Amino acid sequence: MPPATILKFPTSSPADTTPLTRLQEAGFKTQDILGIVGKTEGNGCVNDFSRTLSSHVWDALIPETAISIFSGGTEGVLSPHVTCILESYEPTGLNAAVTRSRVLEPWEVGTAEHAKAVTESIRETMIEENIQPGDVRLVLVKCPLLTSERIATIQGSGRKPVTLDTYESMALSRYASAIGIGAAIETFLEPQIPYLLSKGDFQTPFASCSSGAELEDCHILILSDSRYTPSPPAPLLRTFTSTLNTAIDFPSLQALLTKALTPTAPYTTATLLQVFAKAEANPSGLVGGRFRHTMLTDSDLHSTRHARAAVGGLIAGVTGDCWVYVSGGAEGT
Amino acid sequence: MPPATILKFPTSSPADTTPLTRLQEAGFKTQDILGIVGKTEGNGCVNDFSRTLSSHVWDALIPETAISIFSGGTEGVLSPHVTCILESYEPTGLNAAVTRSRVLEPWEVGTAEHAKAVTESIRETMIEENIQPGDVRLVLVKCPLLTSERIATIQGSGRKPVTLDTYESMALSRYASAIGIGAAIETFLEPQIPYLLSKGDFQTPFASCSSGAELEDCHILILSDSRYTPSPPAPLLRTFTSTLNTAIDFPSLQALLTKALTPTAPYTTATLLQVFAKAEANPSGLVGGRFRHTMLTDSDLHSTRHARAAVGGLIAGVTGDCWVYVSGGAEGT
Amino acid sequence: MPPATILKFPTSSPADTTPLTRLQEAGFKTQDILGIVGKTEGNGCVNDFSRTLSSHVWDALIPETAISIFSGGTEGVLSPHVTCILESYEPTGLNAAVTRSRVLEPWEVGTAEHAKAVTESIRETMIEENIQPGDVRLVLVKCPLLTSERIATIQGSGRKPVTLDTYESMALSRYASAIGIGAAIETFLEPQIPYLLSKGDFQTPFASCSSGAELEDCHILILSDSRYTPSPPAPLLRTFTSTLNTAIDFPSLQALLTKALTPTAPYTTATLLQVFAKAEANPSGLVGGRFRHTMLTDSDLHSTRHARAAVGGLIAGVTGDCWVYVSGGAEGT
Amino acid sequence: MPPATILKFPTSSPADTTPLTRLQEAGFKTQDILGIVGKTEGNGCVNDFSRTLSSHVWDALIPETAISIFSGGTEGVLSPHVTCILESYEPTGLNAAVTRSRVLEPWEVGTAEHAKAVTESIRETMIEENIQPGDVRLVLVKCPLLTSERIATIQGSGRKPVTLDTYESMALSRYASAIGIGAAIETFLEPQIPYLLSKGDFQTPFASCSSGAELEDCHILILSDSRYTPSPPAPLLRTFTSTLNTAIDFPSLQALLTKALTPTAPYTTATLLQVFAKAEANPSGLVGGRFRHTMLTDSDLHSTRHARAAVGGLIAGVTGDCWVYVSGGAEGT
Repeated sequence: MPPATILKFPTSSPADTTPLTRLQEAGFKTQDILGIVGKTEGNGCVNDFSRTLSSHVWDALIPETAISIFSGGTEGVLSPHVTCILESYEPTGLNAAVTRSRVLEPWEVGTAEHAKAVTESIRETMIEENIQPGDVRLVLVKCPLLTSERIATIQGSGRKPVTLDTYESMALSRYASAIGIGAAIETFLEPQIPYLLSKGDFQTPFASCSSGAELEDCHILILSDSRYTPSPPAPLLRTFTSTLNTAIDFPSLQALLTKALTPTAPYTTATLLQVFAKAEANPSGLVGGRFRHTMLTDSDLHSTRHARAAVGGLIAGVTGDCWVYVSGGAEGT
Repeated sequence: MPPATILKFPTSSPADTTPLTRLQEAGFKTQDILGIVGKTEGNGCVNDFSRTLSSHVWDALIPETAISIFSGGTEGVLSPHVTCILESYEPTGLNAAVTRSRVLEPWEVGTAEHAKAVTESIRETMIEENIQPGDVRLVLVKCPLLTSERIATIQGSGRKPVTLDTYESMALSRYASAIGIGAAIETFLEPQIPYLLSKGDFQTPFASCSSGAELEDCHILILSDSRYTPSPPAPLLRTFTSTLNTAIDFPSLQALLTKALTPTAPYTTATLLQVFAKAEANPSGLVGGRFRHTMLTDSDLHSTRHARAAVGGLIAGVTGDCWVYVSGGAEGT
Repeated sequence: MPPATILKFPTSSPADTTPLTRLQEAGFKTQDILGIVGKTEGNGCVNDFSRTLSSHVWDALIPETAISIFSGGTEGVLSPHVTCILESYEPTGLNAAVTRSRVLEPWEVGTAEHAKAVTESIRETMIEENIQPGDVRLVLVKCPLLTSERIATIQGSGRKPVTLDTYESMALSRYASAIGIGAAIETFLEPQIPYLLSKGDFQTPFASCSSGAELEDCHILILSDSRYTPSPPAPLLRTFTSTLNTAIDFPSLQALLTKALTPTAPYTTATLLQVFAKAEANPSGLVGGRFRHTMLTDSDLHSTRHARAAVGGLIAGVTGDCWVYVSGGAEGT
Repeated sequence: MPPATILKFPTSSPADTTPLTRLQEAGFKTQDILGIVGKTEGNGCVNDFSRTLSSHVWDALIPETAISIFSGGTEGVLSPHVTCILESYEPTGLNAAVTRSRVLEPWEVGTAEHAKAVTESIRETMIEENIQPGDVRLVLVKCPLLTSERIATIQGSGRKPVTLDTYESMALSRYASAIGIGAAIETFLEPQIPYLLSKGDFQTPFASCSSGAELEDCHILILSDSRYTPSPPAPLLRTFTSTLNTAIDFPSLQALLTKALTPTAPYTTATLLQVFAKAEANPSGLVGGRFRHTMLTDSDLHSTRHARAAVGGLIAGVTGDCWVYVSGGAEGT
């Protein structure tokens, strides 16, 4: 698994690929790109064509083995940008690997077959790249959703779609991907996939999944800690994970940032490169078990948009950075 | 000007007036109500009937001299609630007075006549209640907007409306109110009202204005510091003001909260009663002069909704309180 | 069952009850009101507070035995109005009766208990008012939906809600009501209620159901043909029913209108009083089995809004009348 | 000016270019394409990236001299499709020419310079292709709009944008284009351009303009009647124009269709190839001077979306065809 580094750049529109030029100015070649993880400015829901547009322009430029993961929705202060995951010639402390699942049939989206396909792809990559489960820090997955057309295809084939609601299919797809990630890291979970799917409350801290109409397979990015660290003063990349217990869990966020921004000797400074977060409207209708929220009864604005805006406002505010990756819908994560 | 105290309660819907019962349980009478300042769960824009519904049910219950100010929009983690401004029988350190402007003709909304009407009403109240300009800490105004019908009335009378865009009329109305507040506190500004209106960049830290279709006059609430303070251990109410320079200005917010939550001897504890904030998408299209935001190019979701969600996410997160008053559109403030 | 007549009036806002004055000018008393059926200008979905506001102001004015049915959503050319169903002192050819079901527990919404409660209420009324099943021409029902709060109540009681999606609960509630109507008219259907609910494709031409958060029981209006007709030249009220096979089924609409507008001797003119229609996005994703529509993949705008706008455009265009009752979501109808 | 023919095809997504294959199956070559006029499934407003995506994929495939015009918004029953304007080897009765204006500077959008650039391009083409003003039947223009970024560019250059509201810039841009078209056909109007712009009520029946963020010049398609007609039984293409006086003007629509569908000897049948229509919410707030509409006070849904849905519902219903080109915002037309 190659050592990796991370650079991020703002984009002026979903069709903006000028970050490629800036990468070259920074000394990287196109071939160094492992993956492009971006936030685009659509609604982040079913008919978000900003994601499709970004995939379209970037997929034509990055290496065939590289993947793109675009998450729509830059509500509030979130700012469109791309995070480039790049192969590094020297150890950085961070490793990255990317892969794709097989193409999922429409009727597999959100099912055990979907979860298993994700598990399989991740596990193959872990074997190939010699990644130990304990070293995995984050798996980002972009997975398909069901459009009206795909639902009709499913029904035409005599099968039953997991849902008739295209927006809900996004959540079911994210959840299946999260279970797939969980089962890849913790092998004993694999036989439980169907049970976990039906139970509905599986959670893993290592997953960040988003769904879109722009693809039919799953794009997978694995970030892991490396045993090979750079020689100071070459910068050391470190990962930190935490769970926000509520959408207003500022104490946990602050604790995490304090930890991340405390330099370890011999380093004397620490800089935040990127935040990857998932945001969700609590299904109970309450924030923190106490404050009634209206995200799930707002028929003008889907709850994932609300959640991204609010959690994005908090994270961007506290970090002072609007180029953070905040994605909506935290099923399974 | 009467000493005042503040209590806030969640609401289960825009029609929920049960806080009245809870006020009584807390020892207050309906006659003690000076004003009800609430957040309701509509879109906060032109066709927000949650505001109208709340006004309707509350105005029938509160004293005739009391006023209601409902601000729509509880995007993200913001939670519907009412803040009750109550007359106190003992000094609290905080004074409050409420008034209403005369009814504005549709063609006055957003003009110098509107601003002057606000100035006049505030100034009369300041004289009657013996409020010194230097003691005023916050003036909340709820002011009218232009619906299609009101625009037609204006045109039918041979006049020209300030705008043909109903959503834009909200901003123009807020701005005229803010200028009216400014001119009430700083007398020398009054002759400049027409100039300030056309110039467009007036700002006062004392104003919080929101507009709605549910009223034709302006509802005005004045909060000021009192020279009469309670005898400890009776609680002392204090006000603190600050400007967030950007929608992600966490340092300013944190500094303000630190100040507010540091007890002054002989008190040993300090509690946050309420936050009144205005949120706005920076017209430059950038957050902090640097991060491109998409709030002004999102034709599915008006920028005031984006701004409330993001700034609400930050303030609710950092204070741990979702019953905060965050209102959208900060023209003049 | 009393003879009934119908008058309709535009409204200037959801809080506008001036049609009451116009009714009096037309010679009716408040006590003559059997029901108010209105279109209000909200989103017609879960958080449509225009409906609640209208219910609130009208329910305080109409007789206790009368009912209100407000359907939100005046997209496109649809124009806010109320249709007053009035008791007539003379036969008109049309009879009307109104009733309410018992209050539904949150966990009953959308279930067989809901359908049965509707059946029961209608049947009792039919017996009391001596209405023959074959004479029933239209049953309008307004029924509850599930908000986040009601979903939490259900879960708190250890039960499982029919759905966790508040918007979807509207469709399930409409469907249960339609089955309830069907079973009231065709007795043999009653034992099949649970089966029809699970099967999902029941249809009756006599039902028009809409759901809202503003009520906990079902409001029911029954229109039937009367055997007692007025003596000409007193106007004769007649009802005509048809099904639009698609959202663009102009031929069926035209045929129906031609029939309705052809006077029967001795009458020499015929006037259209009102159209009651239901509109829906075809679940197949196609209009007329051929044209791909995007109503079910549009995450910015719920499909009921799309459907009302389009079918409302057609019906208002062809009839030349924007005060038509076009309601979204045609489950069971 | 080349004889032209028209073929239209449904699209399965904004990225779908399979109509190209179907064109080839129908005997056309890519080089025959003069223009692609499509309806895509975005919101049709500022952030409609479905338009950008379609432009992106099609512009890479069509001849350099050809143009694309994508209009977003397939609300209600409108169905995504492309109309291909093709050069014909034989006379058809219809001629077509396409051109582009020079790139407009951001500060020119919506101004007299914009209108003049359109006039100039059209007039040059008319001279080159020998088109007589009296033969022009329809000019379709796709023109730029102002994004936050372009507004900042304008302000950065010390200029004043025509508006600060990105959505409003779409209307101003359409209006300038319409004036440009009018002045190209009626020469005497050219000196009046600034006056017509400020007056705001210019109208020409020959224009159909839509704006988008996906281009910086204007794409222009001119359809005109040809003096050369085919020899029967080769099909004769004819154009018919009418104005709907209101959004529910069914009589005018019906009269137009009757005229269009009445075959002229020696032809015995007539088929409708395509409808190009503009739809708009009447600024008075009333449909037909009588029915209050809510399109201009709906802050959740822009009026162009409402208007397309309603007028699209009428036209698709009456023609039985959902692949009609109904575009929102009829300024100047």
